[in-house]
Amino acid sequence: MSANSLGTNLGIEITKVEGRYVEGTMPVDDRTRQPYGLLHGGASAALAETLGSVGSHFLVAEQKKAAVGIEINANHLRGKKDGLVTGKATCVHQGGRMHVWNIDIVDEDDQLIATARLTVMIVARS
Amino acid sequence: MSANSLGTNLGIEITKVEGRYVEGTMPVDDRTRQPYGLLHGGASAALAETLGSVGSHFLVAEQKKAAVGIEINANHLRGKKDGLVTGKATCVHQGGRMHVWNIDIVDEDDQLIATARLTVMIVARS
Amino acid sequence: MSANSLGTNLGIEITKVEGRYVEGTMPVDDRTRQPYGLLHGGASAALAETLGSVGSHFLVAEQKKAAVGIEINANHLRGKKDGLVTGKATCVHQGGRMHVWNIDIVDEDDQLIATARLTVMIVARS
Amino acid sequence: MSANSLGTNLGIEITKVEGRYVEGTMPVDDRTRQPYGLLHGGASAALAETLGSVGSHFLVAEQKKAAVGIEINANHLRGKKDGLVTGKATCVHQGGRMHVWNIDIVDEDDQLIATARLTVMIVARS
Repeated sequence: MSANSLGTNLGIEITKVEGRYVEGTMPVDDRTRQPYGLLHGGASAALAETLGSVGSHFLVAEQKKAAVGIEINANHLRGKKDGLVTGKATCVHQGGRMHVWNIDIVDEDDQLIATARLTVMIVARS
Repeated sequence: MSANSLGTNLGIEITKVEGRYVEGTMPVDDRTRQPYGLLHGGASAALAETLGSVGSHFLVAEQKKAAVGIEINANHLRGKKDGLVTGKATCVHQGGRMHVWNIDIVDEDDQLIATARLTVMIVARS
Repeated sequence: MSANSLGTNLGIEITKVEGRYVEGTMPVDDRTRQPYGLLHGGASAALAETLGSVGSHFLVAEQKKAAVGIEINANHLRGKKDGLVTGKATCVHQGGRMHVWNIDIVDEDDQLIATARLTVMIVARS
Repeated sequence: MSANSLGTNLGIEITKVEGRYVEGTMPVDDRTRQPYGLLHGGASAALAETLGSVGSHFLVAEQKKAAVGIEINANHLRGKKDGLVTGKATCVHQGGRMHVWNIDIVDEDDQLIATARLTVMIVARS
């Protein structure tokens, strides 16, 4: 594992991993904004995918399996100029071959900034 | 407009903007990989959203309208460890209120790494 | 309005409309199954889109605006051979130009069969 | 296999299956419209899912594997009141564990009515 990754590059910090729930934060700054000064939708998608992937990784680690993200989708609901967003990822389906996560991204007042869903395929570890 | 943004942070370069077609590149390195050394699906989503947003921005610039990305989705098809990916964005629907882009992300051999779709709402410029 | 529609064709019944929450049922039978005898994923998507559309219609009816579904996505989580599914649609974002609905489809034991998201554009009524 | 299914219920006819390409038609009538007389977005999603599922089924039939649709998404681009739509499904990724289909739905003048993507998981036949 590398210490440098998209997650560190975007300032993402994982703050909670509890079974089927994962939480993490991401700053809204020059690292994550689009040129007009708002949080980039792609950064929201990256936060969502990071949280679900981390969650699935931990859920299957003891089974010697690997988690591979195969589909991400996100709706961008509200602009945000600065501060911090928090992503709240819940595993809504934990099957033997597939996990599905719902990820809500909220601001400091718990207003919904984006909502996303990640599909993860569970495969034998290579 | 800020010179620093998610796009510059991820090393994205826009290489072509021709009407309803936009192309750009992104490196696969510590800025865009997940901890296991593969291109992060969130980086693919960010590249896709960047290309479609840039394209819609130019398509409506003369109409004094603004383009707001509202939904992004992407399938991750193939892992990639290093080198460069190229995103090819095509506007498959250019309506008065909405644009929809299909974005294919390929490697140096033109193999499909990811495929994405972006929905953009066209609004009065504030 | 026509009494005959996709909804009646699939046996969908709207059972509750309460502000930002809509509920409805759909039978799992020859009308909604794929050839192998399981609930067709397309029927789940149709139920999800029906519920969110009905909900947005009522939310904007007094404003003389119309609701146009623009994007639907759904994950199929569990097979189902017969009986009834219930769709539970919640409006997670009610903006002036856009509504976003999360729709969970469950079986008689409240197990998740599918989960979906619908994006609705709010436009002037023509 | 049952002769009665969602596909027959919606009037879907498969008109071409050629390797990674599948085509089919669906009428726009009381079976597939929403109450306001336009093609229901859920019917478009059902057509898309049907075509990709049929295609994956044939692609893996000789391998004694089964194809399970796991995610469908669709953008609704243009209203349609009557006549016939044609769905054109292309397998953009045919992997050992996953297929991804792009499905364009067009009217009689080849105008794009909807565009969709289907993710199919390939599993051992039970």
